[in-house]
Amino acid sequence: MKKSSLIIGRQPLIEALESGRAIDKIFMFKNINGENVQTIRQLAREKNVPVQMVPVEKLNGFTRANHQGIVAIAAMVQYIDLQQVIDHVVSSGATPLFIMLDGVTDVRNIGAIARTGVCSGAQCIIIPDKGVGALNEEALKSSAGALEKIYISRVNSLAHAVDTLHLNGIRVACAEMKTATKVYEADFTQPVCIIMGNEEKGIQHFLSKAADDHFTIPIAGDFDSYNVSVAAGIILYEAMKQRMLI
Amino acid sequence: MKKSSLIIGRQPLIEALESGRAIDKIFMFKNINGENVQTIRQLAREKNVPVQMVPVEKLNGFTRANHQGIVAIAAMVQYIDLQQVIDHVVSSGATPLFIMLDGVTDVRNIGAIARTGVCSGAQCIIIPDKGVGALNEEALKSSAGALEKIYISRVNSLAHAVDTLHLNGIRVACAEMKTATKVYEADFTQPVCIIMGNEEKGIQHFLSKAADDHFTIPIAGDFDSYNVSVAAGIILYEAMKQRMLI
Repeated sequence: MKKSSLIIGRQPLIEALESGRAIDKIFMFKNINGENVQTIRQLAREKNVPVQMVPVEKLNGFTRANHQGIVAIAAMVQYIDLQQVIDHVVSSGATPLFIMLDGVTDVRNIGAIARTGVCSGAQCIIIPDKGVGALNEEALKSSAGALEKIYISRVNSLAHAVDTLHLNGIRVACAEMKTATKVYEADFTQPVCIIMGNEEKGIQHFLSKAADDHFTIPIAGDFDSYNVSVAAGIILYEAMKQRMLI
Repeated sequence: MKKSSLIIGRQPLIEALESGRAIDKIFMFKNINGENVQTIRQLAREKNVPVQMVPVEKLNGFTRANHQGIVAIAAMVQYIDLQQVIDHVVSSGATPLFIMLDGVTDVRNIGAIARTGVCSGAQCIIIPDKGVGALNEEALKSSAGALEKIYISRVNSLAHAVDTLHLNGIRVACAEMKTATKVYEADFTQPVCIIMGNEEKGIQHFLSKAADDHFTIPIAGDFDSYNVSVAAGIILYEAMKQRMLI
């Protein structure tokens, strides 16, 4: 992590939060008190920035400067509110093609998915504020810069994000092993958001249940699953192809 | 690298070579002489094992044992002669679907391609003996074990490998940016080997020229290329789908 991506101390953090600068995470001394702490908590809540309470040694490990019990990590990318993204994409005349990352932890997979997303014409990646790999320099490098060419919307609840998508007429679709519908039989020509799950555990049950469409990527050989970034590549390719051919 | 994957000294190496054990590379002291050296050179040539001449410090870095000017690295996978693979696949009644790696250097990409290969029903990966990432533990891990479920044929000339494929009626196909044919318009139902190129430089010119079929993976968005393992995933998915639907 670059030192320059750290925000150290209370007033600098308040200024960063108020200016709308994207912040990945705030580390706060677990026994913190004193002025401004309530302001920071309040702003963090408003901006969907996770706060982790830590021992002072953790903060000292980040910096030798006077951190006043607060160190935050600035994000490499700018996060955009989901409703704003939808409004923007729809008003531009495009048909939404979004990707939701449900616990994809490997930053290289995230980078590769972002790259495929931009190639295939997807406009937005929705990530939860916890349980997903950081959009750090390695992710940016793996994406070959694509992470800067796609909207990133960070939300504190994927379930609420699904509600927002539904309210805006965007279907939610996911791959599932035990489904008869093949990926090439699913319809991706309508506004749709594709959920990609964790490398090991797949998609969380409540999200799979909330999804409108389920499909499976066929497997011809003696193996049980694709790498998640390859699976995303196949699905997004299929969506792009369908949209090019209509 | 695991110490156990080293073969140290002349007689152990001769035995390993004669037994058919797969060996990635032989490091030989640049001023080596004495008995058995010619035997080793001859066996290495027969088995397509590259020999690199190195200063003694390099050998001492591998091991503190008495290496007699020779250290070799045992391969994690077993290599099979290309003609043998073709004979085996054809006699099993399958339609060859092979992958040739032309300078894919990232071992994680190699692992992901092997995993997709097995999923999509490909039977063989052809690699050159130089200029490709090692099929090491990280590649094996990235492949989720798939590297052990697909034939690996290591050749000292990709041009000769193309000749062998052609003599056996296997077409050679590759992706290219400036081609009108889309990947979904190409025919993958016949015996075919797909060449995947280097992450930066793509496929070498002589291979692209030797290929029978050229196609392009469309790009809908503002970006110039896919990650190589995602591109392989899209092509192999398209091939699998065509074969499932005929």
